Amino acid sequence: MVAKLRIGLAGLGTVGTGVLDLLARNGNEIEARTGKKLEVVAVTARSNSRVRGAHDLSGLVWAENPQALAVHPDVDVLVELIGGEGDPAYSAVKAALAAGKSVVTANKALLAHHGGELARLADANHAGLYFEAAVAGGIPVVKTLREGLAGNQVSRVSGILNGTCNYILTKMADEGRSFDDVLVEAQKLGYAEADPTFDVGGFDAAHKLAVLTALAFGTEPDLKSIEIEGISHVTLEDIRNADAMGYKIKLLGVCADTGDGIEQRVHPMLVRKGSPIGEVDGVFNAAAIHGDFVGDLMLVGRGAGAHPTASAVLSDLCDIARGNRVPAFGVPGAKLKPFRAAPAQTHAGGYYVALDLHDRPGAVAAIAQRLAERNISIESIVQRAPQTAAETAPFILTTHDTQESDMRAALSQIEKDGYAARPPRMIRMERL
Amino acid sequence: MVAKLRIGLAGLGTVGTGVLDLLARNGNEIEARTGKKLEVVAVTARSNSRVRGAHDLSGLVWAENPQALAVHPDVDVLVELIGGEGDPAYSAVKAALAAGKSVVTANKALLAHHGGELARLADANHAGLYFEAAVAGGIPVVKTLREGLAGNQVSRVSGILNGTCNYILTKMADEGRSFDDVLVEAQKLGYAEADPTFDVGGFDAAHKLAVLTALAFGTEPDLKSIEIEGISHVTLEDIRNADAMGYKIKLLGVCADTGDGIEQRVHPMLVRKGSPIGEVDGVFNAAAIHGDFVGDLMLVGRGAGAHPTASAVLSDLCDIARGNRVPAFGVPGAKLKPFRAAPAQTHAGGYYVALDLHDRPGAVAAIAQRLAERNISIESIVQRAPQTAAETAPFILTTHDTQESDMRAALSQIEKDGYAARPPRMIRMERL
Repeated sequence: MVAKLRIGLAGLGTVGTGVLDLLARNGNEIEARTGKKLEVVAVTARSNSRVRGAHDLSGLVWAENPQALAVHPDVDVLVELIGGEGDPAYSAVKAALAAGKSVVTANKALLAHHGGELARLADANHAGLYFEAAVAGGIPVVKTLREGLAGNQVSRVSGILNGTCNYILTKMADEGRSFDDVLVEAQKLGYAEADPTFDVGGFDAAHKLAVLTALAFGTEPDLKSIEIEGISHVTLEDIRNADAMGYKIKLLGVCADTGDGIEQRVHPMLVRKGSPIGEVDGVFNAAAIHGDFVGDLMLVGRGAGAHPTASAVLSDLCDIARGNRVPAFGVPGAKLKPFRAAPAQTHAGGYYVALDLHDRPGAVAAIAQRLAERNISIESIVQRAPQTAAETAPFILTTHDTQESDMRAALSQIEKDGYAARPPRMIRMERL
Repeated sequence: MVAKLRIGLAGLGTVGTGVLDLLARNGNEIEARTGKKLEVVAVTARSNSRVRGAHDLSGLVWAENPQALAVHPDVDVLVELIGGEGDPAYSAVKAALAAGKSVVTANKALLAHHGGELARLADANHAGLYFEAAVAGGIPVVKTLREGLAGNQVSRVSGILNGTCNYILTKMADEGRSFDDVLVEAQKLGYAEADPTFDVGGFDAAHKLAVLTALAFGTEPDLKSIEIEGISHVTLEDIRNADAMGYKIKLLGVCADTGDGIEQRVHPMLVRKGSPIGEVDGVFNAAAIHGDFVGDLMLVGRGAGAHPTASAVLSDLCDIARGNRVPAFGVPGAKLKPFRAAPAQTHAGGYYVALDLHDRPGAVAAIAQRLAERNISIESIVQRAPQTAAETAPFILTTHDTQESDMRAALSQIEKDGYAARPPRMIRMERL
């Protein structure tokens, strides 16, 4: 008789049902590959409905709560698809690990907040903590950082980590529509939540970035030091200006070793059209990694959705079935380095600046002077004639590489000078 | 004292030296990650020079030959960087596996010819057979197929698998130069061999494709059924015509489950500019995978070179140091399916056809008639006036999706009709 891997599934929403779909369709192939039969034997969910999608779950054990599921004697491995940094997910994952059971989780918030602690708990109990599904859906970026690049020192990871934002920005560009307009459509299609703040504010991407940073640099995840800026202030005009200069605007999460601590940022960025990351559109996600030996590596795929995420959950379950384990963040929990943040605003790069200028003499000269005072070199300027009856004229400039602190200081001074009708809009430029 | 993984390194060329570089630079990080000290204790090479790059190897064991290295009592794992389908690589790898030692190899030819046999030998001796470096250099495509997508049924893999060809095609397009001209430059730069046939003839890509096919479908590798066409017949004119229609020309390796056997092909292909694979230029490689749950996934990175390839070798060595093993082609060797090839010429897609027509009445009508007889629908036609004094005129057409067998039959008839000065050039089109 073939050995079994008995799964306790906590959470029967979209992804949970996707996992059931996958096991129903590809269970035989997985058994051939791993030598084990993967079987969901026990579940728990907020709703007690026994039917999920095409699956009648009335024959399974229904645990009272996630923690009871985690320690149920029939359960070999806990799959946690509840979400949220706190309980019930947190206690359930801890209970499973403490009992020496491996955990597969898609919970980025839990990892971003408690990753170090959970990694050490897993190690202490000879259990595995797996989370391919927590970052970038079906893209195997966790496995790539933890195993595929295990010989490298990674210096930088940048990614398109939120499909909702990428969908909205792509639609704005392709169809010439406003942010608000596209957001409403994305909500109707189920690509954006009723309260979209978590996605469009950059917070979802930041949670994922915190996990990637820990994997890339062998540090504790550190969500709080991430500089976060969302996409809701990006205008159609910015997108059009960027397009005219050969760029697209993407929400990127970036972590990099600056040599003086680690920098983590989530914000919109101009990326070149025709560059690999510039062609990642719609709901697709991407992660671009630079390692000292591998050089540049990029992974692109579906970052969300029931089936791609189920694919990631099963990657972890197959590792467990095959008896393969790697420390949660690539180094044993006891060796995770404390996170040391780089000094703020060290990003050096080009900047896109959009200003609405009052139609007064001296404005351009004053702006150029303020930039020159900070040694900021202008790369290009586009000034258009004001629209009929408009009292301000759009003025767009891009700069050569400069320090973010200088850029911010210059813009602050430009705002005080009073030539601009509104605060300047600044978007960083990535020259990948 | 920290445990050691003692490496026997067979082959001290570019990649072998890259592995030494990597261990020298990142050995401490690897020890922290894996809990083991990875140490090259014994080597063998054609030349007995004790110094390789920055490394003085005079203190190591120098084995008489690769087979002696494989069974040397101080060696825990054999790293085979000799190359070639036959001896000495073949016997050395077999000797190591038979002795229960895991093998890491970059040898695509060995795997394409003997992969099934070696996989079974590894299983029988509880040893691992690892070959991330054999396909697409630093890109972790082997790990992705074998582990990351273990829950999926893969239906198709297509890749840019040869950096030399991609470099040549990119240079031709970017600089408007001929194939021969760019090839000479590539040879000077070390991107192409003195005898370039193995690369530009598509054979290198075919070996890699045979390995990917086995991983994707759990079959024996089957090199001989691959339809192989290189790039030496691709003209600058073809590249310019493709460009004008919004395409680039790439050498692709494609394997797909047709439902009636597996299709494997290596040939030039028109891919859309702005598509993810269309933007993979220069020496970069890429693999695009479609799995039933993950959907479309693409990996892009450096497909060759000492350091990217060393990165792949170390990925495997870290798996071994961590005690993680997966069957060579994702399923146990005993369960590898015999390869069943799809009927020839089943590819259905669009076609680009370039003809040189004699300046005679009726030529276009005759061509259109021959295509219509096979139900081939024309998508676009470009006919240019003949160059001054030229006796023929270029005539370019693209077709809607059609069967390759129909396309070939129609072209054969067109050639017989005698309106064309030279045999038609046909390049397949990929609409990714």
